[in-house]
Amino acid sequence: MSQDHPASVKVRFEPFNIVAQAPVGSTILEVALEAGVHINASCGGEGVCGKCRVIVEQGEVVGGLTEKISPQDAAKGVRQACLAELTGDVVVRVPVESSLDKVALKALAAGSAQQATLIGGEDLKQEGRFDPALAKVTVRANPPTLEDNRNDVARLLACLREKGERGFSFAFEAIRDLPEAWRRGDWQVTTTIMRPVRRKYGRNQVIRVEPGDTSASNLAVAIDLGTTTVWAQLIDLNSGQVLATEGDFNGQIGYGEDVISRIVYAGKPGGLKRLGEAACGSINEVLKAVARKAGVELTDINLATLAGNTTMTQLFLGVEPKYIRLEPYVPAAAYYPPLRASQFGLALADHVRLLVFPAVASYVGGDVVAGVMGVGMHKDERLTLFIDLGTNGEVVVGNRDWMACAAASAGPAFEGGGIKFGMRASKGAIENFSVNPISGEPAIVTVGKAKPRGICGSGLIATVAALLMAGIIDERGHYNLDHKSDRVRQGEDGPEYVLAWAEDTSIGRDIALTETDIDNLLRAKGAMYAAYMTLLEGVGLSIHDLERVILAGGFGQSINLERAILIGLLPELPLDKFIFVGNGSLLGARLVAMSNQLRTEVGDIVDKMTNFELSVAPNYMGNYTGSLFLPHTEGNRLFPQTWARLVEARQALKQVG
Amino acid sequence: MSQDHPASVKVRFEPFNIVAQAPVGSTILEVALEAGVHINASCGGEGVCGKCRVIVEQGEVVGGLTEKISPQDAAKGVRQACLAELTGDVVVRVPVESSLDKVALKALAAGSAQQATLIGGEDLKQEGRFDPALAKVTVRANPPTLEDNRNDVARLLACLREKGERGFSFAFEAIRDLPEAWRRGDWQVTTTIMRPVRRKYGRNQVIRVEPGDTSASNLAVAIDLGTTTVWAQLIDLNSGQVLATEGDFNGQIGYGEDVISRIVYAGKPGGLKRLGEAACGSINEVLKAVARKAGVELTDINLATLAGNTTMTQLFLGVEPKYIRLEPYVPAAAYYPPLRASQFGLALADHVRLLVFPAVASYVGGDVVAGVMGVGMHKDERLTLFIDLGTNGEVVVGNRDWMACAAASAGPAFEGGGIKFGMRASKGAIENFSVNPISGEPAIVTVGKAKPRGICGSGLIATVAALLMAGIIDERGHYNLDHKSDRVRQGEDGPEYVLAWAEDTSIGRDIALTETDIDNLLRAKGAMYAAYMTLLEGVGLSIHDLERVILAGGFGQSINLERAILIGLLPELPLDKFIFVGNGSLLGARLVAMSNQLRTEVGDIVDKMTNFELSVAPNYMGNYTGSLFLPHTEGNRLFPQTWARLVEARQALKQVG
Repeated sequence: MSQDHPASVKVRFEPFNIVAQAPVGSTILEVALEAGVHINASCGGEGVCGKCRVIVEQGEVVGGLTEKISPQDAAKGVRQACLAELTGDVVVRVPVESSLDKVALKALAAGSAQQATLIGGEDLKQEGRFDPALAKVTVRANPPTLEDNRNDVARLLACLREKGERGFSFAFEAIRDLPEAWRRGDWQVTTTIMRPVRRKYGRNQVIRVEPGDTSASNLAVAIDLGTTTVWAQLIDLNSGQVLATEGDFNGQIGYGEDVISRIVYAGKPGGLKRLGEAACGSINEVLKAVARKAGVELTDINLATLAGNTTMTQLFLGVEPKYIRLEPYVPAAAYYPPLRASQFGLALADHVRLLVFPAVASYVGGDVVAGVMGVGMHKDERLTLFIDLGTNGEVVVGNRDWMACAAASAGPAFEGGGIKFGMRASKGAIENFSVNPISGEPAIVTVGKAKPRGICGSGLIATVAALLMAGIIDERGHYNLDHKSDRVRQGEDGPEYVLAWAEDTSIGRDIALTETDIDNLLRAKGAMYAAYMTLLEGVGLSIHDLERVILAGGFGQSINLERAILIGLLPELPLDKFIFVGNGSLLGARLVAMSNQLRTEVGDIVDKMTNFELSVAPNYMGNYTGSLFLPHTEGNRLFPQTWARLVEARQALKQVG
Repeated sequence: MSQDHPASVKVRFEPFNIVAQAPVGSTILEVALEAGVHINASCGGEGVCGKCRVIVEQGEVVGGLTEKISPQDAAKGVRQACLAELTGDVVVRVPVESSLDKVALKALAAGSAQQATLIGGEDLKQEGRFDPALAKVTVRANPPTLEDNRNDVARLLACLREKGERGFSFAFEAIRDLPEAWRRGDWQVTTTIMRPVRRKYGRNQVIRVEPGDTSASNLAVAIDLGTTTVWAQLIDLNSGQVLATEGDFNGQIGYGEDVISRIVYAGKPGGLKRLGEAACGSINEVLKAVARKAGVELTDINLATLAGNTTMTQLFLGVEPKYIRLEPYVPAAAYYPPLRASQFGLALADHVRLLVFPAVASYVGGDVVAGVMGVGMHKDERLTLFIDLGTNGEVVVGNRDWMACAAASAGPAFEGGGIKFGMRASKGAIENFSVNPISGEPAIVTVGKAKPRGICGSGLIATVAALLMAGIIDERGHYNLDHKSDRVRQGEDGPEYVLAWAEDTSIGRDIALTETDIDNLLRAKGAMYAAYMTLLEGVGLSIHDLERVILAGGFGQSINLERAILIGLLPELPLDKFIFVGNGSLLGARLVAMSNQLRTEVGDIVDKMTNFELSVAPNYMGNYTGSLFLPHTEGNRLFPQTWARLVEARQALKQVG
């Protein structure tokens, strides 16, 4: 997996006059669904159904021609949307079956939120905050004589003082290596200095000495240890540049999908050790991958930072996690001291220190702290809602003066769990969906453009939102069995909608969404909604006081805002108030490697953040039950515009019907 | 080996009216020779020669009766001095062959110096300085609830704050063990807290947590890592009591007798590692021995302190020692951070920190710093000379305001090296000697009261002093071959004196002292004398400004002051200005374990001490060549009383002769 940002192109969809921005290499179908433009497509992007014909009116695309398109049509610009890849700006016309269709479909078109402009090394430099926790300082000394035969460390300290460096301690290994380093480097050595998190409580520590001048190379690695995935980012601490980013699944998955099952497994004999090794093994793989990508050796890395949720952190470090799971949910610690990376099995040099993000609570961990720090929430006066979506969703409300946080036990629906055909966002997972309200025919996009195999979290939200808007389900998530499409049917588990017929799938069975699935999604989104509503009410605020909503997490990045609002997962606010930050955990881990000032601020964040246990918050249950509805039992009050659009769409459909 | 101080008894020797103090269990012969009372005895204390008859006039002794003493004589109190052990105060009459003998022998009688009253835990408590670097603090907390589910560390910190403890960091292992400790101890835990050496630069560190209240046990071990021997002392940090002291040879001896040969060995492939392991193995043996003696487990020990010379320290820690040996003699470091004892192979629990004494220079190491601290030289206004005798002798001059130090390359003579029949002070080594100036017959005492096998350092000094006083050698160390005794003879290596005839030895050869041996001793004592004279002159002072002379080192403790002055090793000063401290290194190591304030002062000592490289001091060579004489080329000026006694003794002998 790679997370670099390719160049983007512009696509205008006619007759809707909807303009979308998309990365080069996307297919027209993907961009259309993301922008809320429906194109019939039922094979998941493999090109076999041939239904997704569009006309490229301006610009060029690559591919999209099969035997299903005649040479004449091809000459007119007809292409299969699921196979046509974008390389530049284009205008695409979508065939519309009727003018009524056009009205219905336009009502579905989604807006888009801002992508956060992430802080990088250059920005920190401009702000005077580029001050890595780890510095290399090269010094040159006069060789000792009988008149000046002070010890090797004293000679080094004098040189460092001349450079304005003060207040040192030495790691034993640096002392051990110094005699040879001085002499091999002909009285020039490079020291690697670890800064204390707070000057008041610590000293600069020389953790390594090398002969000669090695200051040109000073690399750090930022690690995001997620329950599902592990990411690493290689950073040049001299330039502040990100050299490579790589990710992979967390090898612990085989021992349980979520943190609870992992904690249970850790309680078995040898379980904790095995989980630590599994996480470590996965991290080492991504470390190798970033090193390979950047053409450096693992031994060139000087510093590691790691952010993960509380369970992941304790499992990786081998700290008993069982009390995270048991009421009253107590983590071992907020802070960990700088650790020795090799002690925990990381394939890094012996001198490398590992800075682990502190946790606020058992279910508000270092990943959330990293994200909050990464987006600068603790320095901003604007009232901000930070949401990290996932099985264990976390929400933070506040600004530079105060912060309240809570964990929402959303359950696994967002990651495809508890859904009949649910799956993680891997190859063949339906990740986007739209539906023609009249015919009931779907358009689906799958991960990897493979034949559909199941449905993942973002696909689930897209499907439920689209079915709701099309009137195929009602506000309670119940199917309208009177719909004319044979995709809406009474299945073996009750009413369902068939997203893909068996012959179009890779599993040879109809992939359908049941009412139970929808119910699970309602519980998941209800838990998230109730979490932030309860926090806001707890401090006497409402949705309308929010000035920014920041969406973090890999899953957060792939959801469509308008659909998420439509189902009542996100609050109804102008879309430009939403900001996607992607992997906030990795962002924070990177920033901390680059700025010791930010590292200090991490502590301020933890100290400032008040954790609410929702299970004992009096208004939580009310908020939760109210949001087990699409979008909410009080939709017209809490989601007024969404409610109005829904009513409008229903009326349009009624006119057609 | 054990270093505890047994009770002492008083012995009056008649007809000389010399009173000596000695430990219970000493033999009359040992005490006599130490007090300068000559008793003929040539078998080293085995009782076989039967020459050492004395009469016990008052009091009782144990043993001393063989078939060589008739029942009638036994009834009169006659005993063999070499076998008669003291259990209480006695008066002993020594048979004197003639009244002239009496004059000659009396002139040899030596005075005795003070034994230092060593500071212990009780003294530190009274002075308010009993403040171990390591404290155990037991706390009890309320169990967590949903309303108060802060992390386990935060709960502990709150408890510690309630106890007035502030400013904490946590070792990772303490965090790791805390969740289980809280719950197993039913919300009572005992924390082991390591104090920072200076509050300004560090924080209290929690290095261990244990369930329940374990504060009753808090043990430390002080280690003296000597070139020849290793000592360990077990200390109860609650009471300040010393629980046990044990010593053994340093296992590195097999790789070289002195630091230079060890450094050379360390340069061979695998040499450094092997030497580190050898030292560690020896330390572990004495650790086991003290634990066994005190009836505790090694795992009960919480803290270790270690003092050794610079080479021993670097070899133990695995820090390249070669630049100690090569000009300009540069050690790796003065200070080492608190280390993890187990990292260096010590058989102690994983949490135990090892505090290593800092070195001033390549040949003024942590053992000297420990000794200087141990005797409180850095806090005393009196001008003090501190002498650590040995192959690498060290001298320190100064007081609380300033200190100058130097290393004297005495060579191995004090440890029996370079001496034809030289040996270390092990079983069978002649360690004390006197001679009848008329007959030339000796009295010898050996270590372990075994048949003589050779001569050790203190025996060498005693022999040369006695031969000088008896006129058997002259001031240049040359034999008077005209002496009537056949023990003075022309041997295969030139003139020599036979200390023991072949049949009285365990090696079956005559044990003799050659002129070359005496020359080597002159060089050794000359190096020591020149060292402190050069230091004193360097700061514009003379011998007569000295208010105290402190003698440290196992060897220092066994020498007779008057004889050491007689040969010009020690300066001529009133004997009550001399203080024996025994193992100053072990003393310092013990005090540091008991007092963090003293630990801080160690740093002050190192910072205050100025090291002089004697090889580049302009007046060193003059001082050295002047002292290659007995006692000195300017004996009448620098050793006036000694010189007068020597002249007087010669005149007495001339009258007899």
